[in-house]
Amino acid sequence: MTTPSTKALVPFVSVDDMMRLVHHIGLERMLSELADAIEADFKRWPSFDKTPRIPAHSDLGVIELMPTSDGELYGFKYVNGHPSNTASGLQTVTAFGLLADVANGYPVLLTEMTILTALRTAAMSALAARHLAPEGSRTMAVIGNGAQCEFQCLAFKAICGIDKVRLFDTDPAATRKALRNLAGRGLDVTACTSAQEAIEGADILTTVTADKRYATILSDNMVGPGVHINAVGGDCPGKTELAEAILHRSRIFVEFPPQSRIEGEIQQLAPDHPVTELWEVFAGTAPGRQSARDITLFDSVGFAIEDFSALRYVREAIRGTAYYVDLDLLADPDDPRDLMGMLLRSQTSAKLA
Amino acid sequence: MTTPSTKALVPFVSVDDMMRLVHHIGLERMLSELADAIEADFKRWPSFDKTPRIPAHSDLGVIELMPTSDGELYGFKYVNGHPSNTASGLQTVTAFGLLADVANGYPVLLTEMTILTALRTAAMSALAARHLAPEGSRTMAVIGNGAQCEFQCLAFKAICGIDKVRLFDTDPAATRKALRNLAGRGLDVTACTSAQEAIEGADILTTVTADKRYATILSDNMVGPGVHINAVGGDCPGKTELAEAILHRSRIFVEFPPQSRIEGEIQQLAPDHPVTELWEVFAGTAPGRQSARDITLFDSVGFAIEDFSALRYVREAIRGTAYYVDLDLLADPDDPRDLMGMLLRSQTSAKLA
Repeated sequence: MTTPSTKALVPFVSVDDMMRLVHHIGLERMLSELADAIEADFKRWPSFDKTPRIPAHSDLGVIELMPTSDGELYGFKYVNGHPSNTASGLQTVTAFGLLADVANGYPVLLTEMTILTALRTAAMSALAARHLAPEGSRTMAVIGNGAQCEFQCLAFKAICGIDKVRLFDTDPAATRKALRNLAGRGLDVTACTSAQEAIEGADILTTVTADKRYATILSDNMVGPGVHINAVGGDCPGKTELAEAILHRSRIFVEFPPQSRIEGEIQQLAPDHPVTELWEVFAGTAPGRQSARDITLFDSVGFAIEDFSALRYVREAIRGTAYYVDLDLLADPDDPRDLMGMLLRSQTSAKLA
Repeated sequence: MTTPSTKALVPFVSVDDMMRLVHHIGLERMLSELADAIEADFKRWPSFDKTPRIPAHSDLGVIELMPTSDGELYGFKYVNGHPSNTASGLQTVTAFGLLADVANGYPVLLTEMTILTALRTAAMSALAARHLAPEGSRTMAVIGNGAQCEFQCLAFKAICGIDKVRLFDTDPAATRKALRNLAGRGLDVTACTSAQEAIEGADILTTVTADKRYATILSDNMVGPGVHINAVGGDCPGKTELAEAILHRSRIFVEFPPQSRIEGEIQQLAPDHPVTELWEVFAGTAPGRQSARDITLFDSVGFAIEDFSALRYVREAIRGTAYYVDLDLLADPDDPRDLMGMLLRSQTSAKLA
């Protein structure tokens, strides 16, 4: 075995290392820091190359690549979405990501992103709510208690000061799972038997269901004035959660309109329906909530810059830690033109070894 | 440390493992088998999702994602191109790739592709020449003796029966490097002092230079009737190697026209200039060479299906070998909805350990 040069090595964060990194930093602190990293990148939105994700669709699901670059770093995420996977004990969504140096094209980080995406999605939701939710919000309803539910709850606690969550899922086992995972984490958690019961007294309504269809998780009469809706589950063509009438009563905030109009709740609306880009709210160039009676709606679909921020954050966070290994991913011959020489010499060293 | 389930593990072929795999199989045999794998996939061309590569350009180079799918497997390659890299001792091109199962979106192979791309590029060139070059071709000129040169020589030996190569590079050190690497491999190798000298008596003219500009490596008067041109180096916008007049005298064969018209030699021609798709030649639905006096030209740019074929080949080739490791890339909780539970339990096991 030949020893690769350091240029050939790419730091790799496995699932196990990511979990250890989360515990090392602290889950809520990491959610807060991810929100700050995303906010900082959204504030310099015009400096990013933005493109809708590149999908490969099949009957059973989709595999997507989500690239972006700020001119110094390039990042992309590989992510799949296969709703039928759970039936065979597989994750609906798995992901990994890569960060590279734009100046020379060399990767600088490869990491699992199933856990990291769960964290950044929750951090993004709570970041949007920090700018949009009614002042003094303390109570959040979470409808849909799947894999993302507890991440949302803890992000809203850490980032928005939510201390009461009211949970509902059509499958009581999902709610029990969430109750178990949230126990002892400083949240007052109530399991509810209907969506209607869950939203009672809630300042923030989070919908994060998994069904791939036009669903009505919130009907028009369930949403009164002065709430913030965090609509997470409507995130691909043909998958929505809100009654259209709610959208017409809401101030709608999105990540990247060309993508959100295809994938978000607003796929139900005319293509010129007015929406506000969240980065402008963060940057102070567009208003957020304008009155206590506004219904604000974050129509979350997930955008490549959020992954970029998360990748950048992880790259910094692992420095000096043991939570990665170096991966021999890149060929790096002593003389860049002598790839064949490197290959031939490796045979000699193998024979000598 | 928790033990990930087998579903979470992705076989990973490092650079070192790839080199050992090449020696295990045998370099020339692997080149031949890669050519066969590419030919088999090209013959079922209509069954692939095809898209031009997705580039992120900067002043210094480009980072590209090249995805494709045949409906059962999905593959993509990450590849950069940074001509200025060699000045700082880095590779101009590095690459890695991934293969995934379309049915559930789970990756099934992650591999280095710097070496694999060098192999598949050479295999593709020789495969095209096997269909297009004049019968009885024995001598090949290779102009440009960089990293790809020796791979081309050995692929044409293994796949087309070439036994004489005539090398020229503006940098004599590059030619010396190629001579060294080709010594004792059954090829009659001549170092030439000009491109004109190199092409003397050659049946096949390979151009594989690195300069990122409109260059004239072959001028019109250098190309007589009855040769095959294997134009490898003209492979991105603004980078060509052949005098335009040669193109007008040639039957031109390309991989994927929408990409070749942007990146290949034919970027010099009108967008409707007739070209033949190679897959049709392989499938027998379009003619290749039609007379002994034809100039045939393979305007190589490299297409995603070639990488797909190479990934598929490597996936099969590593079965039962020690030339990969399992990478803990995917989170895979026992209950797919219980990602948070997996995360929390990992903390408990870390404390117990």
